[in-house]
Amino acid sequence: MTEGAIRADLIIRNGLVVTMDRDRRVIEGGAVVVTGAEITAVGDQALGERYEAVTVIDAAGDIVMPGMVNTHCHAAMTVFRGLGDDIPDRLERYIFPLEAKAVTAELVYWGAMLAILEMIEAGVTTFADMYFFEEMVGKAARDLGMRAVVGETVIGFAAPDCATPEDAVARTLAMARDWGGDDLVQVGLAPHAPYSLAADTLRRVADVAREADLPVQIHLAETQKEWDDMQAAHGRSPVAYLASVGLLNDRLTAAHCLFADEDDMAQLRDSGAGVSHNPGSNAKAGKGVAPALRMRALGIPVGLGTDGAMSGNTLDIFSQMSLASKIHKLEQRDRRVATAADMVAMGTIDGAASLHMAASVGSLEAGKRADIAVVSTKSTHMRPLHDVYSALVYAAWAGDVRHTVINGRVVMRDRKIPGYSRDKIYREFDRIAGGIKGIAASL
Amino acid sequence: MTEGAIRADLIIRNGLVVTMDRDRRVIEGGAVVVTGAEITAVGDQALGERYEAVTVIDAAGDIVMPGMVNTHCHAAMTVFRGLGDDIPDRLERYIFPLEAKAVTAELVYWGAMLAILEMIEAGVTTFADMYFFEEMVGKAARDLGMRAVVGETVIGFAAPDCATPEDAVARTLAMARDWGGDDLVQVGLAPHAPYSLAADTLRRVADVAREADLPVQIHLAETQKEWDDMQAAHGRSPVAYLASVGLLNDRLTAAHCLFADEDDMAQLRDSGAGVSHNPGSNAKAGKGVAPALRMRALGIPVGLGTDGAMSGNTLDIFSQMSLASKIHKLEQRDRRVATAADMVAMGTIDGAASLHMAASVGSLEAGKRADIAVVSTKSTHMRPLHDVYSALVYAAWAGDVRHTVINGRVVMRDRKIPGYSRDKIYREFDRIAGGIKGIAASL
Repeated sequence: MTEGAIRADLIIRNGLVVTMDRDRRVIEGGAVVVTGAEITAVGDQALGERYEAVTVIDAAGDIVMPGMVNTHCHAAMTVFRGLGDDIPDRLERYIFPLEAKAVTAELVYWGAMLAILEMIEAGVTTFADMYFFEEMVGKAARDLGMRAVVGETVIGFAAPDCATPEDAVARTLAMARDWGGDDLVQVGLAPHAPYSLAADTLRRVADVAREADLPVQIHLAETQKEWDDMQAAHGRSPVAYLASVGLLNDRLTAAHCLFADEDDMAQLRDSGAGVSHNPGSNAKAGKGVAPALRMRALGIPVGLGTDGAMSGNTLDIFSQMSLASKIHKLEQRDRRVATAADMVAMGTIDGAASLHMAASVGSLEAGKRADIAVVSTKSTHMRPLHDVYSALVYAAWAGDVRHTVINGRVVMRDRKIPGYSRDKIYREFDRIAGGIKGIAASL
Repeated sequence: MTEGAIRADLIIRNGLVVTMDRDRRVIEGGAVVVTGAEITAVGDQALGERYEAVTVIDAAGDIVMPGMVNTHCHAAMTVFRGLGDDIPDRLERYIFPLEAKAVTAELVYWGAMLAILEMIEAGVTTFADMYFFEEMVGKAARDLGMRAVVGETVIGFAAPDCATPEDAVARTLAMARDWGGDDLVQVGLAPHAPYSLAADTLRRVADVAREADLPVQIHLAETQKEWDDMQAAHGRSPVAYLASVGLLNDRLTAAHCLFADEDDMAQLRDSGAGVSHNPGSNAKAGKGVAPALRMRALGIPVGLGTDGAMSGNTLDIFSQMSLASKIHKLEQRDRRVATAADMVAMGTIDGAASLHMAASVGSLEAGKRADIAVVSTKSTHMRPLHDVYSALVYAAWAGDVRHTVINGRVVMRDRKIPGYSRDKIYREFDRIAGGIKGIAASL
C-alpha cells in the first residue's frame, strides 16, 4: 500500500465522469471511489490518486455515468418478446389469456433472469417491476446483484398466482416481511390500474401502503378509453379518481400518464408522486405521447421506463432516451426541447426521483449507493466525442456499456458476468420460451 | 471436392433466410450460394448441400437477410457528429459556415471511411451519398468494398470544392467518366434542393442527367418554410416546382418529402421517382413526419435514410426501422400500421427500389448482387425468436450484425474487417475530428 493512500474497495479512474449531480458536473480524467456499497468520493485525477483499492478500473476513453433507472418493467415478459406485435386489442384478447395459461413461478424466474441480464448489459442498475410470482423477480435480482423495486400485481380477476386482489395484497405483505431490510430488493404494492380494480380495493391498497410503509406503482391514464371510461363512471379523470381513492401521494410512481390535463398535472405535482414515462411502449402501441416535458417543467419527477418486452421490446434506457428526445421534438416541432442532457437526467437522477430513491441512487455523489455504468466511446458510431450528452443519447446503444457496478459490486466487467453463467440463463430461458409458441398458437 | 457438388465461391448455410423476395419467403435452415459477385441460388438445406465453396459461413442461430440500403447520407459528416444538436436554425447559421471552414478532401475521405465502416458494421451494403469532394467518398467506398451512389453537391453558392454550380456539374461528369462501369461505385447528380438553386440550374441538371444517363438525388419538401417559400415564389408546392424544371422522373430519389399533399404524391408516383424517408433526422429536427405510409400505399418506392451524422446521428438502418415504425404508429394512433415486416421491406428491397437499383440489390434472389447481412439472434435482447421481423425491427441493434457481404466479398466477418485496419481509420479520423472543435468554437 502506497504511503498515505486511503483505502477503498473500488476505484474507477481516468474516465469522463458525468455526475448528474445538482451542478451537472462533468469531470475529464475523473475518478469515482467506492467503499463497500457506497460512493465515498468523486473528483478529478488528483483525488483518484489519493486512494488505493483492490479493484481498479481504468476508464480511459470511457464515460463513467450513474447507472440508469428503468422505472417501469414487467421483466418476466421477455419470454413473450416478439409475440403479438402490431395487432390490436391485445391486452384483453391476447396477453391476459396467454398469461393465464403460461405464467408459472419458473417462467417468472427465468424470464426475469434474462431481463435482468439484459439490463445489466445495458448499464441499468435499478428497475421497478410489476408482475406475478414477484418473489421470483426479487430472487432473480438478488442472484444477479440487481437493484429492484418488486410489486406483486393486484388485479381484479384471478391471476396466475393469486385468486383475488386480497390474496395479492397478502402476498405482497409476506414478501415485504421476507425481504425487509434487503440492500437491493425493495418490495412495493402494485395495483394494476384504476380501471381493473374496484374502488374499495384501491382504497385498501392505499391503507396498506401507509401502514406497511411501502411504495406503490400503478398504470395510470394510459389510454383514451381509460379517460373516457373514468369520466363515464366517476365523472373524473384517471388522475383525479386515483386521488379520490387515496393513492395519489408521495409513495406513488404512476406509469404512462398520457392523458393528464393541467389540473391533473398540478395535482400530481402537489401530491409528490413520480411519473414513469414509457415512450417506446406508448408509441409502438399507437397510444400517444405523455406530456412528459410539461410535467418536468412543473417539477414532477419523470423517469424513463421500457415497459415489458411485449411492449418495448428491449429493456435498455439508451433506446428510450433516444426515442423520447425525438418524439418530443417532433410533437412540439422544435429541435431545442428534450435536449440530450435532459434525457440523460430522465434516464438517471430523475428516474431515481420518480421512484422516490433519489437520496440513494441516480447520480455519482459521495454518500450514494455505488450504481455506475461505464460506457465506451471507442466504437465506430460513438466517434468523435464532441459532446458527451449527445453521444449518450443520439449515438450510443446498450452494447457500448463496458462495465456495470451495482451497490459497489462489479456485476459486469468487460461485458462478462462474473459469478454467474450467462449460458445457464440462456439454456433455461430458451427451454421455457420454446414452450410459449405452442401456447400462444392455441389461444 | 465432393462427387457431383456444384462449385461456388461462398455459401452461407443453416441460417434463417429472410429473402425479401416477391413472396417474402423465409427459409429455416436455408442457404445462400454466391458465385463471384452474384447470388446464384437461394433455398433450403438440401439445396445448400448440393454446392461446395472455398468460403463457407455457418449461420446456425443467425438471420440471413439482404444487406440494408441507406438511401440518404452525407457520410463525411461523421467528423461533426455531436456538434450543434438541439440548436435552432443551424443549417444556415452553423453547418454551412462550419463546412466552408473545415471541409477538405482529406476530411471527406476519412470521414467517409469511418462512416462506411460504421455502415458495414451495421449490415448496410448500399448507400446514397451527397457531399463535397465526392470522389473521395467513391474512393473510400472502393477501399472498403462498399456499394455507393455518390453525388457531388450542386449548390447555389461557393462550396468547399466548387466555386459555382456549373463547376459541380462538371466535376460530376468528370467523376462519371472516371468511375464508369465500376462494379460498386455509381456516380449521380446531387442538386442540393429546390430552394438553394436557380431554376435554370435545376433545368440544366435535368438535361445533364438525361444526356449522361445519371441518377439524381435531391433534398425535397423538407420544411414548412420550403413549402411556404415555394408557394410564395412559384405558386407551387416543392414537388410541383421540381416537376416544372424537369427533375421529377424515374432517375430521381427525393430525400425527406415531408410536405407533400395528395396531388404531389400522385405526381411523384406517376413520375417513377423514389423517396428516401429519414425519420430520425426529421424527428430530431422537429420538422415533422413524412407521409411515408401513404406514399407506400400509392406504390411509390420508399426507402429509409439516416441523413448525415449531424442529423441522425448514427448511420445504421436498424435504428431507422425501429423509429419509423413507432413514429407512424404514433401519428396514426394505430399499432397495426407500419408493421415490422413493412419496415424490413423499407430497409432493404424498397430502399433499393427508391434508388432504382431493385433489379440488382435489395433481396436475396438468384441473379442479384450478393449483398448480405448475417445477424445473430443469440444476444440477450434478441431472445427469444418468436418472430423474425419483430426481432429485426423492435429488438436488434447494429451490433447484432455478425457478417456483411457486399458484391460477393465478405467485408466483415465475425465483426472483423479483413484487409483493412480499423485502427488506422480510427487514428486518421480522430486526428481530423480533433481539429474540428476549435473551428466550431470560432464560428
